[in-house]
This record gives sequence, structure tokens and C-alpha cells, in this order.
Amino acid sequence: MNIYLAGPDVFLPNAAEIGRRKVALCKRYGAHGFFPLDNEVDLQASDASRQIFHGNEAMMNRCDIVIANLTPFRGPSADAGTVFELGFMAGHGKLCFGYSNDPASYVDRTRRLSEITDSNGHLTDRDGLTVENFGLTDNLMMIHALDLYGSPLIVPREAPADLWQDLTSFEACLKLAASY
Amino acid sequence: MNIYLAGPDVFLPNAAEIGRRKVALCKRYGAHGFFPLDNEVDLQASDASRQIFHGNEAMMNRCDIVIANLTPFRGPSADAGTVFELGFMAGHGKLCFGYSNDPASYVDRTRRLSEITDSNGHLTDRDGLTVENFGLTDNLMMIHALDLYGSPLIVPREAPADLWQDLTSFEACLKLAASY
Repeated sequence: MNIYLAGPDVFLPNAAEIGRRKVALCKRYGAHGFFPLDNEVDLQASDASRQIFHGNEAMMNRCDIVIANLTPFRGPSADAGTVFELGFMAGHGKLCFGYSNDPASYVDRTRRLSEITDSNGHLTDRDGLTVENFGLTDNLMMIHALDLYGSPLIVPREAPADLWQDLTSFEACLKLAASY
Repeated sequence: MNIYLAGPDVFLPNAAEIGRRKVALCKRYGAHGFFPLDNEVDLQASDASRQIFHGNEAMMNRCDIVIANLTPFRGPSADAGTVFELGFMAGHGKLCFGYSNDPASYVDRTRRLSEITDSNGHLTDRDGLTVENFGLTDNLMMIHALDLYGSPLIVPREAPADLWQDLTSFEACLKLAASY
């Protein structure tokens, strides 16, 4: 069981440590975890970003399962790179799991970042663009892709004290993956 | 040539009109454009968001090509739903094109929204998370996926006066798609 560990964890100051913790947890459930940072990349090379892409793509192709950390990142939604990878794995028909450490609805999170206007239940942001209001925690494409390609998004009842270091919901995904 | 028209255009106040303009442009290039909003969905139903997902997924499966509007949306990156769809189409090995009407680099855009600390060239945001700094306009996974699965991201030299209504870069994608 090869699991691709997608998430903005690679941007954390202790990214390598988080990667090791996730891989160790995978091992405990009989799985092999692949953490994107473990690819060999020459960060000084002029094509470093392309090397990272190719490394991640090769890792994804080797994996049967993705567990995506969809905790909101620099805005109301999940990290774009992680969302791309979730879509890529779903497109390949692979088993998809995801978690977010922020249980707030997309509407509530957007409201924190921007003024929202309510016109008979139709919500818009300050630019006049519709705010998806289905009570989901993020964009419906990701949320329902998880329902269909694996298991519904895992969210804690309350956000953990440390949104980026807490792996409780990650482990819940792992348990689900191991039970398949 | 069936083209899936991915983008946060569906959230615009004149979404239906933008969709019609995109579909009409497709026709001019001999292609059939599929705009997500054209799916029949009962918005009053309790499973409306799931109906939208299934409609979009069926549309994507019918299309050979995606043109994704990756103009930044509520933060420094593209709309999560659009990014998921781009990944999904790439995962299916389909031809991928994308454009962004904001030519700024990801670093410059992030700097506008958050303080950035530079420690010997390693950039971090106010939460201490690394800011990707490869001179790209958005997360490397999307940018290089376009290189590999279709054609490099199209960006205007300067942002158009109206970031959401200008279809110049969309049409440039369409020309590329038609030339394949």
C-alpha cells in the first residue's frame, strides 16, 4: 500500500520532521508513505521547480492512494498544489482521502477574510463574486470528489491548538485507507 | 473538439453571459465549449452541491481538452475548484491549457496579502511557512502540469483593466487548442 502524502506540510519550517512523522505513522498501519520532500532535487539548478514537479508526479504514479492535507492555506481554501494533486489522483481513479484541521464552513472562513453581502440567501464577496454556500468546508469539487473516490473529508470537531502539527485527522484518514 | 471551460467565471454576477461568450468563441474555432453552469441542477435540492459535482464530472469526461481560468481567486492562488479540475483532466491524460489575467509572480502577490520575511533568499510568510520562490505566477504543480500536458500558462504582459471580463488570454488558449 503506497500512499502519497500531499499537503502544504512541505512549506512548514519543520517540513522534514512532519514528513518523517507521517511516514512513521503509515508504517504503523502497514503502508509505505511517500513524502514529496523526499525527492532528490537540485534546488540550485535553473529548472529546480520542474525537477520538483517531475519528482512529485513520479511519486504519485507509484502510489495507489493519496491522503491530502486540505487545511486552508493563505486564504479560505486548501493549498493549490495539494488540490491539483488530489485532482490528479482522482483523475487516475486512485483512492482519495483528505482532512482539514479547520472545521469551519467555507462561508464562515470567507467571511473572516472579506465582507460578505447576503441578498435573499445569495452570498457575494466584496468583488461581487458568489460565495458557495452549501454548508461545506471548502469548494464542492474537492469535497464531493473525496466522497466518490474514497471517503468523506475528515475534520475534527474543533480545530486543534496547532493547525499544522496535529496529525489526529491525518491518522484517521490512514485508518480508513488501511481498512480498504 | 470538446473543451471543458473551467474557472471561477461561474461565480461572476454575469456568469451565464461569460459562459455564452466563451462558448461562442469556441464555436469560432471549430470547437464545442462546455460551461459548467449549463448543467441542469436543482439548486433547491438537499444534494444540490453533489448534483453540481456529478454534472461537472460528466462534462469533464465528455471533453478532450480543458481551458482553465487560473486568475487568482480570494487569495494568492487560483480557485480551488478550477485547480482540482485541471488536476483531474491532467490525471486523465487530457490536453490542458490555462491562463491567468494577473501576470504578477506568486511571491509579489503573496507579499501584497501578507508580510514576507527573507532569510538568505528563503522566503516565509507571517506564519513561518515557506513562500515558493521560483519566479512562477502560481504553485509549481499547476504551472508545470500545463507545460507537460498542453502548453505553458498564458498571461498578458499587463493585467487587463477588468480581470474577470477580459477574454484575450482565454482566446489565446483557444487558438493553441485549435492548432493541436
